[in-house]
Amino acid sequence: MTYCVGIQLDRGIVFMSDTRTNSGVDNISTFRKMFTFEQPGDRSITVMTSGNLATTQAVISLLQERSKHPSDRAPDILRCESMFQVARLVGATLKEVIEEHAQNGQQASGTFGATLIVGGQIHGGEPRLYLVYPEGNFIEASDDTPFFQIGETKYGRPIMIRAYDRQMSFEEAIKLLLVSFDSTIKANLSVALPLDWHVYEKDSCKTGRMGRIERDDPYFEIVSNGWGGALRDAFAALPEFEMPATA
Amino acid sequence: MTYCVGIQLDRGIVFMSDTRTNSGVDNISTFRKMFTFEQPGDRSITVMTSGNLATTQAVISLLQERSKHPSDRAPDILRCESMFQVARLVGATLKEVIEEHAQNGQQASGTFGATLIVGGQIHGGEPRLYLVYPEGNFIEASDDTPFFQIGETKYGRPIMIRAYDRQMSFEEAIKLLLVSFDSTIKANLSVALPLDWHVYEKDSCKTGRMGRIERDDPYFEIVSNGWGGALRDAFAALPEFEMPATA
Repeated sequence: MTYCVGIQLDRGIVFMSDTRTNSGVDNISTFRKMFTFEQPGDRSITVMTSGNLATTQAVISLLQERSKHPSDRAPDILRCESMFQVARLVGATLKEVIEEHAQNGQQASGTFGATLIVGGQIHGGEPRLYLVYPEGNFIEASDDTPFFQIGETKYGRPIMIRAYDRQMSFEEAIKLLLVSFDSTIKANLSVALPLDWHVYEKDSCKTGRMGRIERDDPYFEIVSNGWGGALRDAFAALPEFEMPATA
Repeated sequence: MTYCVGIQLDRGIVFMSDTRTNSGVDNISTFRKMFTFEQPGDRSITVMTSGNLATTQAVISLLQERSKHPSDRAPDILRCESMFQVARLVGATLKEVIEEHAQNGQQASGTFGATLIVGGQIHGGEPRLYLVYPEGNFIEASDDTPFFQIGETKYGRPIMIRAYDRQMSFEEAIKLLLVSFDSTIKANLSVALPLDWHVYEKDSCKTGRMGRIERDDPYFEIVSNGWGGALRDAFAALPEFEMPATA
């Protein structure tokens, strides 16, 4: 499994992804699931992946090869004129990779499927955040739905819904994501540290601060341990249920 | 979908279930999913259901018919000698109903499947809590895993893991369940009020206090609204992330 979240803020976009891949519980590995494509001053694009690892690696490799040899073949993620075109390119590449394997007489969908989050900004446009489906189509984040999750989305969703605020600082956003990831990691063995993060600052059109939160990260431990106590305090602060005297 | 939880406490067992059933989002109904079988002083058994409604209603009807006409046929849920025997009977009945439809040449598993929670106490034994699978087999709650959820289990799980304490009072347990149900209801349209609850008091061997939390229940609204604020306060109380100066 996987857990990746991209959230749109007034100040930009924050991305976070875990790094665990597994094929059964007895075959786990660590792979990066966050990739950035950059031309400083012109664009910064971040892609996060969930699903079949062979599929997502092929998609990223195709996007990278094409971007490194612009004369080779179009379209090219570093030459798309808008984030909408980028999402179309990523979607088309994803669909192409899945179809290639499905057409070999193998089972498709579940087996080769993958879902991606694509976000960033191209000079002259606004920051955009997309969720790309295995079929190659996609949806865009909006004021009503300002964040996307892929992979194991459920455990970490309630806190995202309750605490998200589009005016929050990047620091608060990372704290929120860590709480959401912590709930997910506690409940699903196939989501695990280390976590990669990237903070894209609006209108910078270049890759922002990035980092990796390792297994023994002291801040993550403070959040993880502190959140349990904070939740119990919050729970205790709610008024008591009054049991009816008779049923 | 459905959401039902049974939790084992030092004082007894608390059960809570929602009442929404749906066959597509345009065909929703309200059905009770919690059923009690009682012989005061001898036993109190509660069954909660999730899955195919035709299957679960058939299972409950078979258990009720058999219990109402003890001379008719054995085994009988009101004559089983232990909770283990009750779980076996419920599992066998569930398996029988699913097989009956599957054998008609229809698709089985996903279509006719159901999962049940069975809990209670028979005089002379301890209170027991079981999770019964569509195959008719079952597992029992223990100190390590003191509660079972069925249906849409993920959204409401993190708070259960964090705040459960086997010494908690019945009132605290109902508050905890309401927070867990509220997170689930907010995230999944197919889980909804009203909620049924039953508090089984250890060694009473009779049905305890029960109630239904209706759509406009003032206490549920206090918990639902208060929990958002409490969560945000808990979140704000965690120390801030320190963004590294350079990436």
